[in-house]
Parts: sequence; C-alpha cells; structure tokens
Amino acid sequence: MRKIHVIGIGAGDPDQLTLQAVKALRSTDVFFILDKGEVKSDLVQLRRDILDAHIPEGGYRLVEARDPDRDRTAGGSAYSPAVGDWRSARAAIYERLIAEELGEDESGAFLVWGDPALYDSTLGILEEILDRGAVAFSYDVVPGVSSVSALVARHRTGLNRVARPVQITTGRRLAEGFPDGVDDVVVMLDAHQTFRRYADEDIDIYWGAYIGTPDEILVSGPLAEVAPLIEELRAEARERKGWVMDTYLLRRNPGS
Amino acid sequence: MRKIHVIGIGAGDPDQLTLQAVKALRSTDVFFILDKGEVKSDLVQLRRDILDAHIPEGGYRLVEARDPDRDRTAGGSAYSPAVGDWRSARAAIYERLIAEELGEDESGAFLVWGDPALYDSTLGILEEILDRGAVAFSYDVVPGVSSVSALVARHRTGLNRVARPVQITTGRRLAEGFPDGVDDVVVMLDAHQTFRRYADEDIDIYWGAYIGTPDEILVSGPLAEVAPLIEELRAEARERKGWVMDTYLLRRNPGS
Ligand SMILES: C[S@@+](CC[C@H](N)C(=O)[O-])C[C@H]1O[C@@H](n2cnc3c(N)ncnc32)[C@H](O)[C@@H]1O
Ligand SMILES: C[S@@+](CC[C@H](N)C(=O)[O-])C[C@H]1O[C@@H](n2cnc3c(N)ncnc32)[C@H](O)[C@@H]1O
Repeated sequence: MRKIHVIGIGAGDPDQLTLQAVKALRSTDVFFILDKGEVKSDLVQLRRDILDAHIPEGGYRLVEARDPDRDRTAGGSAYSPAVGDWRSARAAIYERLIAEELGEDESGAFLVWGDPALYDSTLGILEEILDRGAVAFSYDVVPGVSSVSALVARHRTGLNRVARPVQITTGRRLAEGFPDGVDDVVVMLDAHQTFRRYADEDIDIYWGAYIGTPDEILVSGPLAEVAPLIEELRAEARERKGWVMDTYLLRRNPGS
Repeated sequence: MRKIHVIGIGAGDPDQLTLQAVKALRSTDVFFILDKGEVKSDLVQLRRDILDAHIPEGGYRLVEARDPDRDRTAGGSAYSPAVGDWRSARAAIYERLIAEELGEDESGAFLVWGDPALYDSTLGILEEILDRGAVAFSYDVVPGVSSVSALVARHRTGLNRVARPVQITTGRRLAEGFPDGVDDVVVMLDAHQTFRRYADEDIDIYWGAYIGTPDEILVSGPLAEVAPLIEELRAEARERKGWVMDTYLLRRNPGS
C-alpha cells in the first residue's frame, strides 16, 4: 500500500522543523513539490534547502509540478466555489503524481508550509482523491509550527489573554466586521491590509511579514499609531521581493 | 545580562520538539522546572526525558520548585482574579529562582508545554517580574507545536474550513454558549465535558486525550453518537491515571 506523509515544515525558519518531521522526511522516497510559479520560488527553494539539510544527497526523488492557476479575480461570495474548482484541479494533478510517480510500496510526502491544519488545502485534496477511488493510499499528518505561533513568539506575546478566547480568521472575513465575542483576532491571507478599517478603535496590533526568514519584518503597537508604518514597510517589501506574506494579531481593548 | 529562553516543547510527543528548541536547550545553563505535585509528575518526567535525550549528562543544571497551589475552588467570575493571585505567587517564585540560581552571564530556560502562546502563564509572569524591576534579564520565545495542532493532525483534519474562521476557547466559555460567528471551535481546559450541552445540535467532534503520549485516546464522529463513549473513556482514563488532559474540536454543520 502506498503511504503519504503530509509534513508541516514551519512557516519560514528551517529550524522550526520538528524531530518528527525530520524522521518523516528520512522515511520518504518521493517528495512532491507544487510550484506556484516565479514569484514565490523562494518558498520552493526553502523546501529544497530543507531536504538537502536533512537527507543525504541522492537519498530521495523530487517530483515537481506546476500548480494550477487559482482564479484570483473571483471576488465576494464567489470565493468558495473558485477555491473548490482550484482544489479539484489540484486533486487531479496530485492523483496523477501519486499514481505515476509512487511505487506500490513506496512512501511519498507533501511538505506543507506552517501547520497543515491552517488554511491549507492538502488534506482536503487527499480526501478528494481517496473519494474518487482511482488510487489508494494511507496517509498521516505531521503537525508543524504555524505562522500564527511564529508571529506571537517573535513578539513575545500570547495568542489569548487569561481565560479568554482567540479567533483565527482571514482578511476577507475581517472586512465584514470585527468578529463577535472575541477581542483577540489573528488575521491571515489578507491582501488588503484590512486592519486599517479599525484604526479608530482601541486596538494593539502585532504584525509580521516573512516571519522566520532573513527578510522578517515585525511591528507592534497601538493600531492608530503604527498602521501607516506597516503600510509603508509592507509596500516597500512587496515592491522589492515581488510578493509578501504577512499575518497579524489584533488585540482589542488591550488594557482589559 | 541574564538571558531566558521560553521553549515550547510540544504537547506530549518528545519528537514534536523543533530543531530550534533543541538548539535553545543546548545553549541553556539552568533549567527551571515547576512541579505541580504528585498527580502530574508524568509531565515533569517528560521534561526530564527531553533534557536527557538532547543534552549530554552533566551538561546542565536543573532547578526544581514546587508550584504554588491554584485556588481551584473559585468559580464563575472569580476565575480571573484567582488566576491573577496565582500568577503573582508564581512570579515571586520565578523571580527568586532567576536571581538566586542564574549567574549574571548565564542563560536559563522554562520548558513550556505545547506552544507558549496558548493558555500558558509563563510570558505574563516574566513581564510581571521585569515590571517589578528587582531582577533584569532578556528573553526570547521558541514556538512549539500546540496540543491544538497535535489534535487535528492525529485526526487528519484541518482547524478551519475553506476561507472560514476558527476559534480557540475554554470549557468555561463554551458553557456560556456556542461562540458567535464561527462553526469551528477548539476547546481546551474543560474539566466538565461541556460538549455534552450541544449533543442535540448538528456537530461533529474530534476529541483527544493525552495526545502524543503512549496513553493517547482519540474519538471522532457525530457528537450525539460519540459523546457517551467519550465520557466513558475519559472517566476510565482519569480513574486509572489520576488526571486527564483533553482537547477537542467542535465542527458545527459539518456538511456545510
Ligand atoms: C495559505 S495560508 C497557509 C498558512 C500555513 N499553513 C501556516 O500554518 O502558517 C498563507 C498565509 O499564512 C500566513 N503566513 C505564512 N507564512 C508566513 C510567514 N512566514 N510570515 C507571515 N505570514 C505568513 C500569511 O497570512 C499567508 O497569507
Ligand atoms: C494550560 S493549557 C496549556 C496548553 C499548551 N500551551 C498547548 O499549546 O497545548 C492545558 C490544556 O491544553 C490541552 N492539552 C495540552 N496537552 C494536551 C495533550 N497532550 N492532549 C490533550 N490535551 C492537551 C488540554 O485542553 C489542557 O487542559
């Protein structure tokens, strides 16, 4: 039976790999890497560096495929269906990779950014392939340090306040309003610096871009004060590198 | 200047340690371990095992202290103040440990269960000590794999559904009602199996106890169906070991 590891590799710092992830890497025959195209090739390179650091040369096969383009023009409520189509396109690619590149007794792996449990489609895609029934395999998941944990560690703060909840959400959701019933909110996948909408509220922000990498930028403080600085740094970095990946924690009524 | 590492060690599986955590362990002179008393001595033992596995014998000093008793009888709104008192009592102990046991040029470490960012008081305590001003040090935080990430990895599911938020909260909060605006809720620190209140709703539960340890128990399924099984397994395990540590994800309207 084919075996697949879904391995969380941390969100940028190669030392965020766990010992369990290193063991899983070493027991893998074939690594599947989906390339998102030119702009994020740094992220593909980090995966290659991780393999080179932990597996003796020649000890593994690397299979690269081009990721299907996601329809990023679809806005508003079209978001979920577009994601669904893209997921099925990805499932078809993964299915072919597994069937053609992985021998019956071999093990393959997908190296997933951060923690596979947060805003990542790999698990959903593997379930979709199993449902289709054309190729059989078993799989396990190696948890990783998420960009959320990395963010707050760098800022030396907690996610939640004592005995209180924390919510993790997307920029798109935050644009619909500050979530109900929570004062601590982590925002991912925000292409529009949605935090700016809340600059007149009593909120502290803990922001980070390229966390864990040599390009890391961190800013924290009262939102009204630091929002312009974050906008500026983010725009500059984006211009320089061609892409930006950032996450932030909003802490409402920080004194409470 | 004294230096302190706050090191996330994962939530039970010693292989959940990151390479960054191993490096931090190896650069530490003195480890501070607070013992919560008899019942949870397994958890103290796991920390000792981690040190023995990664640091050559005699390569470190271990300082153990007895944790102040937390006033667990205080209920309802008294929860936060009781936590506050307990935190100050802990701060006094930590302050003394740092001042007396750590030389001016040495580095000390606290090994924190899971990820230091989730429902852990270490960072708050260190800030409180710095505020008191009696002892000076710098500190950094090494993020860890939380029990939340470990839970969903073992169940091979995500925390959030596509483009949707997830909330992490406590049993006490869940007792006040299912959180607004989210359908995916992770519950920690629940001594009362609060999930039982929602057994008549369309909810799937992913439950785990002693995750990552040899005692691990996992159950998932429609809440109404599996709640009695979870109650039974939890009670049995608690009886056998004297304590139980469990976490669960509630997924409302799982078909949506
Ligand atoms: C598709 S999600 C994947 C998240 C990933 N599974 C994790 O656990 O971090 C991508 C989002 O994660 C966040 N992110 C990932 N890595 C990051 C990093 N190194 N610095 C800042 N944000 C990061 C950003 O919000 C980005 O939009
Ligand atoms: C004081 S909190 C500390 C959480 C920790 N910082 C983390 O990241 O997992 C303790 C709670 O974490 C959860 N927990 C920690 N380790 C666990 C494990 N191995 N299995 C199940 N739940 C665990 C339980 O909900 C427990 O009540």
